[in-house]
Amino acid sequence: MKLQVALDFIEISSAIKLVQELQGIADIIEIGTPFIIKDGIKAVTEIKKVSTDMLVLADLKIMDAGEHEARIAFEAGADIVTVLGAADDATIHGTVNEARKHNKKVMVDMIAVHDIKKRAVEIDKTGVDYICVHTAFDIQATGKNPLEELNIMREVVGNSKIAVAGGVKPDTLQQIVVYNPEIIIVGGAITGKTDKRAAALGLKEIMKRDL
Amino acid sequence: MKLQVALDFIEISSAIKLVQELQGIADIIEIGTPFIIKDGIKAVTEIKKVSTDMLVLADLKIMDAGEHEARIAFEAGADIVTVLGAADDATIHGTVNEARKHNKKVMVDMIAVHDIKKRAVEIDKTGVDYICVHTAFDIQATGKNPLEELNIMREVVGNSKIAVAGGVKPDTLQQIVVYNPEIIIVGGAITGKTDKRAAALGLKEIMKRDL
Repeated sequence: MKLQVALDFIEISSAIKLVQELQGIADIIEIGTPFIIKDGIKAVTEIKKVSTDMLVLADLKIMDAGEHEARIAFEAGADIVTVLGAADDATIHGTVNEARKHNKKVMVDMIAVHDIKKRAVEIDKTGVDYICVHTAFDIQATGKNPLEELNIMREVVGNSKIAVAGGVKPDTLQQIVVYNPEIIIVGGAITGKTDKRAAALGLKEIMKRDL
Repeated sequence: MKLQVALDFIEISSAIKLVQELQGIADIIEIGTPFIIKDGIKAVTEIKKVSTDMLVLADLKIMDAGEHEARIAFEAGADIVTVLGAADDATIHGTVNEARKHNKKVMVDMIAVHDIKKRAVEIDKTGVDYICVHTAFDIQATGKNPLEELNIMREVVGNSKIAVAGGVKPDTLQQIVVYNPEIIIVGGAITGKTDKRAAALGLKEIMKRDL
């Protein structure tokens, strides 16, 4: 079970410091969508330089031009790129093709997909590496959590590995680890804390306990 | 009927030259998704500086954190921001709320939305300024064109204005103008030509002819 830490609203210089704090704890550093919007793909390049023992994920949330957009990320140093589950299959295929050329990986973000079971079955056949159930930031206040969707994914996904994102905190993490997803994505529960290293270590502890 | 020119794969310096060539012809300059991925939101700021009589649209294709991501674009100088029709309603509302604070506009991109009629009815109630039917770049090779969707939109959309995008060329434009959309978005049929100003003028000519 891997810990992915999402950096969303942050300056590059602060992100570099944070990544250094998280060495040996985080497995994957996510350059979040707002971070890429603000600074462009150079955020990936700069963070990759200091992420010596971590993978870097570019959260592009690709919706079109899969091959072209994924190429920008991989050429900038990304190890994993995200494409939307809501995208056309052709876009997912294009993203996967580009990843194979670079020997890199693709995560499908299932955010806002309504019939998640049907779509997961379809996407599981496309050769993507990870499928991520993701409760949108904008609807986390409704109390929706990813457990039900995680359960569905466990039933129907056989080829891809499973990731989970969306407001993960220590208490929800305890419920999530039961499903043994490959990747757990955490943002604010680490980046919003004063002692970010301690917060990450605390979450890692929960992840180990239930393995 | 307004002409929006999409800049997708371009360096900022070339984009500035192109915008100067298109003065008086293009009504809206789109900073395309791959352009923003590559250079970040400063592409919007730089292009806005030289777009003296044109609006600038930031094609963020927002899927989550509507308020936060839209704010980055509006603070950088964007006049219009895009949010995905596939996003949760909360994300569309957040994007609209942020636009109102800045007295700016929102376009919903219907790319890859399957039940476009049902979704257009829902989105038409959210207060967005434009709803855009959009044939994905990745599926344009299948011969799909936006005319059928444009027809549906004309039937069901009453509050928002209609835009159309996706492989628009002189011959398809002749069919599109019949539906009198507010905005027609053109990329390669202008940016892929040697004489881009002449290409844009030719398209504008077709747009006037059918008004």
